[in-house]
Amino acid sequence: MIIVMTMGATDEQAEAVREQIRAHDLTPHDNYGTQRVVIAVLGDVAPVRDHLMSKLSSMPGIESVTPISRPFKLASRESHPEDTIVEVLGARIGNGSLTIMAGPCSVEDREMMLETAKAVAAAGATILRGGAFKPRTSPYSFQGLGLEGLHLLVEARKATGLPIITEVMEPGQVDVVTEHADILQVGTRNMQNYSLLTAVGKAGKPVMLKRGYGATIEEWLMAAEYVMSAGQPNVILCERGIRTFETYTRNTLDLTAVPLLHHLTHLPVIVDPSHATGKRWLVRPMALAAVAAGADGIMVEVHPRPDEAKSDGEQSLTFEQFASMAAALRHIHDEVKTLIKDPFITDGPVTVGEASKH
Amino acid sequence: MIIVMTMGATDEQAEAVREQIRAHDLTPHDNYGTQRVVIAVLGDVAPVRDHLMSKLSSMPGIESVTPISRPFKLASRESHPEDTIVEVLGARIGNGSLTIMAGPCSVEDREMMLETAKAVAAAGATILRGGAFKPRTSPYSFQGLGLEGLHLLVEARKATGLPIITEVMEPGQVDVVTEHADILQVGTRNMQNYSLLTAVGKAGKPVMLKRGYGATIEEWLMAAEYVMSAGQPNVILCERGIRTFETYTRNTLDLTAVPLLHHLTHLPVIVDPSHATGKRWLVRPMALAAVAAGADGIMVEVHPRPDEAKSDGEQSLTFEQFASMAAALRHIHDEVKTLIKDPFITDGPVTVGEASKH
Amino acid sequence: MIIVMTMGATDEQAEAVREQIRAHDLTPHDNYGTQRVVIAVLGDVAPVRDHLMSKLSSMPGIESVTPISRPFKLASRESHPEDTIVEVLGARIGNGSLTIMAGPCSVEDREMMLETAKAVAAAGATILRGGAFKPRTSPYSFQGLGLEGLHLLVEARKATGLPIITEVMEPGQVDVVTEHADILQVGTRNMQNYSLLTAVGKAGKPVMLKRGYGATIEEWLMAAEYVMSAGQPNVILCERGIRTFETYTRNTLDLTAVPLLHHLTHLPVIVDPSHATGKRWLVRPMALAAVAAGADGIMVEVHPRPDEAKSDGEQSLTFEQFASMAAALRHIHDEVKTLIKDPFITDGPVTVGEASKH
Amino acid sequence: MIIVMTMGATDEQAEAVREQIRAHDLTPHDNYGTQRVVIAVLGDVAPVRDHLMSKLSSMPGIESVTPISRPFKLASRESHPEDTIVEVLGARIGNGSLTIMAGPCSVEDREMMLETAKAVAAAGATILRGGAFKPRTSPYSFQGLGLEGLHLLVEARKATGLPIITEVMEPGQVDVVTEHADILQVGTRNMQNYSLLTAVGKAGKPVMLKRGYGATIEEWLMAAEYVMSAGQPNVILCERGIRTFETYTRNTLDLTAVPLLHHLTHLPVIVDPSHATGKRWLVRPMALAAVAAGADGIMVEVHPRPDEAKSDGEQSLTFEQFASMAAALRHIHDEVKTLIKDPFITDGPVTVGEASKH
Repeated sequence: MIIVMTMGATDEQAEAVREQIRAHDLTPHDNYGTQRVVIAVLGDVAPVRDHLMSKLSSMPGIESVTPISRPFKLASRESHPEDTIVEVLGARIGNGSLTIMAGPCSVEDREMMLETAKAVAAAGATILRGGAFKPRTSPYSFQGLGLEGLHLLVEARKATGLPIITEVMEPGQVDVVTEHADILQVGTRNMQNYSLLTAVGKAGKPVMLKRGYGATIEEWLMAAEYVMSAGQPNVILCERGIRTFETYTRNTLDLTAVPLLHHLTHLPVIVDPSHATGKRWLVRPMALAAVAAGADGIMVEVHPRPDEAKSDGEQSLTFEQFASMAAALRHIHDEVKTLIKDPFITDGPVTVGEASKH
Repeated sequence: MIIVMTMGATDEQAEAVREQIRAHDLTPHDNYGTQRVVIAVLGDVAPVRDHLMSKLSSMPGIESVTPISRPFKLASRESHPEDTIVEVLGARIGNGSLTIMAGPCSVEDREMMLETAKAVAAAGATILRGGAFKPRTSPYSFQGLGLEGLHLLVEARKATGLPIITEVMEPGQVDVVTEHADILQVGTRNMQNYSLLTAVGKAGKPVMLKRGYGATIEEWLMAAEYVMSAGQPNVILCERGIRTFETYTRNTLDLTAVPLLHHLTHLPVIVDPSHATGKRWLVRPMALAAVAAGADGIMVEVHPRPDEAKSDGEQSLTFEQFASMAAALRHIHDEVKTLIKDPFITDGPVTVGEASKH
Repeated sequence: MIIVMTMGATDEQAEAVREQIRAHDLTPHDNYGTQRVVIAVLGDVAPVRDHLMSKLSSMPGIESVTPISRPFKLASRESHPEDTIVEVLGARIGNGSLTIMAGPCSVEDREMMLETAKAVAAAGATILRGGAFKPRTSPYSFQGLGLEGLHLLVEARKATGLPIITEVMEPGQVDVVTEHADILQVGTRNMQNYSLLTAVGKAGKPVMLKRGYGATIEEWLMAAEYVMSAGQPNVILCERGIRTFETYTRNTLDLTAVPLLHHLTHLPVIVDPSHATGKRWLVRPMALAAVAAGADGIMVEVHPRPDEAKSDGEQSLTFEQFASMAAALRHIHDEVKTLIKDPFITDGPVTVGEASKH
Repeated sequence: MIIVMTMGATDEQAEAVREQIRAHDLTPHDNYGTQRVVIAVLGDVAPVRDHLMSKLSSMPGIESVTPISRPFKLASRESHPEDTIVEVLGARIGNGSLTIMAGPCSVEDREMMLETAKAVAAAGATILRGGAFKPRTSPYSFQGLGLEGLHLLVEARKATGLPIITEVMEPGQVDVVTEHADILQVGTRNMQNYSLLTAVGKAGKPVMLKRGYGATIEEWLMAAEYVMSAGQPNVILCERGIRTFETYTRNTLDLTAVPLLHHLTHLPVIVDPSHATGKRWLVRPMALAAVAAGADGIMVEVHPRPDEAKSDGEQSLTFEQFASMAAALRHIHDEVKTLIKDPFITDGPVTVGEASKH
């Protein structure tokens, strides 16, 4: 941690800062610039980081307080250099293969679920998705089939052999979802629902954590940290667009997050172009772009008859569209694997304060 | 709902759209412009709104689909013109008086809670706040006293007569929090935790709903709609800053939301300058500004010794600072009441598509 | 244009709206819903659009005013269905080939400029870039060589045969830049510098218009409209990242803009991953992603010794890195050309009002 | 400047960083934490800041590079503690009085200009505004009267005695605008038009710099630095809303910028609620809030008949509305002056890195 004193700070003010640091069993270390005193905090700051920052932030004579280490640990590549590979029912995520999660937005009935499951399996999906408990912006919209949806997913798994992923919306649902699903999904609106993060972290199944549409990458990794610190090391991150001022798309898909995350963390990264764009005809180009950026896989919505879907029909692909896209993705993934690494470059710093931030 | 066809749309495409509308028991109505066909949907669209929009969005020949009515109903001033006044233990929120919610970020122990409660009561607070269950970005931070915190809040209510408000983080906590608290608070990160919204809506106590830091005003009102449709009409809205690109403040306090909400909804509006700014010395000017903008009240964090606070010390006020600010707020509130209404102006449209949006 | 009256609007208020429409030589057309009157405006709205919207926006009894047609015309694909192909010195942009614009951020001296030009030409660049007039956030930073820089660019063109693109910062520079350069670049901070847009539009050379980092796609196309309406049909759009709340990257590269723009406009679309990410090691994956999303080309910064660059060294590639990346891009571009089009899908509506915008 | 090495950085990598620092005639100073080496840069970093940061950013073994001093100097309160008071034709801005800038969006003709000028003067405006050169999003909109508009403004000044402020859009207009106007306004879309900033800085008249709608406070102050470093010390800052994801308002008015700017800089701060909200009925509450937050004044648009205005009619006030609002503002300003300062609080740090940024 670095404390920069104001230009007019007194010796007493600087000494009070040093005292505060020492009171936390840490060591203050002065760096005298030409105009200010800058005090570095030496020692293991992590356990008292928040507390010390809070105290310093109300002391007079301080210009700024800057933490140095990142707040996530278990999720950090520095502390865990090897890639995490999530294995579930024979499927592997994060091992260099292309993961394709596909299925309907909502499980609507037995027939459509099985029909879709078989179609996406035949076209090369590696994980089957389907919503049983649905978070909907309007209380007047279809809220999912609940437990019945889980049973239909299980039946679809039996029919195809594909592992299933489905969303869990609250701690009280964790047990029943864990019992049926292979991967527990936490949705964008629940990314900082800490009760839920802790509950899924204890459930014993891999967790896919969608990025909050208003969350920074650091907050996202802190949410992963919650799940991991509760006991579950197999966390998959899913980029699905962030909220910006642009209105032609539902959200802005942040594909730069893909290589950034591969630098910052050892966890696999999936991209969901369906929710980010909200439009069927934009799914394919953005899925291709995601794979070209190095994503470990994609998640898309598929429906036998999108214009009859009970939810998200406008962004769901037909079976033909999905099969065609899956083939294209596999082709590009094969090519990109050898192209994405630059033999002449290694990663540099992630954070560089910038004088000209444009 | 208005469907604009593309310039090159065929008669068959337009007729298919009309068929789709009729299939929802609604009436298509053509408006022929010079270059395009524009089809209005007549009838009660609300019950099939999402479904119809989803279907239309995948049909060829359509340029855009624009819903006309707002998606919130119970929360809308159009359907409920009179102000909602929330009454709790003698305190009234939304009746033209100035509500001041104050107390510590977290309930830390008995002594500090009682000390703070008495101090803020003496200085004119009308509601007592305090966190028992704390949502924290880091799993390694202090997570609150839980049930013990609720008991201390109850004791503080007994000592001061002030009604208490505290946050509830998950459906499983709703019963116990409802049993102890007078107003249930839903935090910014849970604004779209629909399981929680439904649970607090059924609990029988007033609910204060903080704006999601990434949520639009419309989504916020839809979240209020969730609570109201579950049975609780007494919802209080709390603006606490939204996420923007600005980095000198934690969030950007959106004070324009105050008069906008008074136009759109009958629910009371509170402003929390502590969390929006994240800095103690910015709380007072922004609280004054909130009252001048017409807010029904403010919520602030107060601590006997902010530099020893277990959370949010950097934004907590001391007793002296709070007492001084509360007096200033009451003074400005008295003056503003007669000044804020313009005798020469009535509200105009909220949404005007703009050619030059600057 | 669609005017929605409030639920309580009087007949007189609705009639006043109709009168206002007629006063603009347009025809009001009523659509009676169950709860409100909705008035459509028939006729050629475009010439009086802003004026009429402004008038309506201050009339009582109106809930919302929604324009139907997009404000850009010359740039619109509806009015110009064929792709615009920009030809300059034998290079073609927008014809399905891969455009690679490369060169130093700033022209620093003769030697480095020629050295870089030859290196990027040898590695397959199709356009040579280099800054002579530099917009810098700080007045204390290197501001470019000016006219001397233009002369060095011309010399580099002679040495390589590549057309040159360089930025023009103000109307007073347009003549001299036009005299030397082949494509005039308008930078992100000048995207709405209307004096400059008009001046470059009259200069007789193709214009590349970078997206304003705070600009929507619609505003960007309106800026293109400025250039086109001043006389220059050959406008190239360059996506370079937008400003969001994320802080790990300088800007958020909006690659979804690529397929969206191909739908909305006939103008070619280039992507600049150097400025969006601000970090050398992120350039290659994002360039690959851009090409996979269907971009007509990319623009990147290259420097013989990036760590000695006078500007933007942190995002500049070395010759080796550029050559390796250019080869990878060409390979992916060849593959993607046949993969990006979905045989089973056609574009749908761009704008669909959404009940559940996530 | 602080350089944090990665956990696995070698001694050679750290030594290379130290060498780079020494090569800039600065002194590296090690701070050994438990897990990493952190190197502080001692000496006068400012002159080589950008250059050194660029070099460091491409060196291996570095985790982050953080500048410590702010990049603006002339605009900084640290280097100039006393408030800047701008005096122009007897009006004083920034001396504790309430500045009210009012007038039409565009100067449309002689009669409306004089009528408006007299009305706003009578109602207490202290500065007269009016647009002669108009930046418009659409090339098809009214672009202002140009020179004739300036002449009408001069006539209005003669009639009222009020100093006039008007926008200048390009360097080539600076001479003629300086000749006629008392304060030169730089608009939001030109905030980083550096050629223009330099030109107005040399013109010899005070400059009002509107915040770029996509600009951070730091960038805004850097733009002020451009004007000041070109020779003009009298710069007025004008907050007018920033771009966010919220769509019910045109922009989000950032009133927290007011007290923040008073802390960071000695320059006066004006608020423009007309452009931020885009709606007449929101102007008054936001103007009151701006004054309550401590703004030195406000700028609003007034028109004799807003529904006939050639631009911005929807946000222009009538004479009656303006007079009523001006009286209310003066009243609140008188009250607030004694209320805004907290006797028990002094400003704290502006930037505190946060573990829990909500």
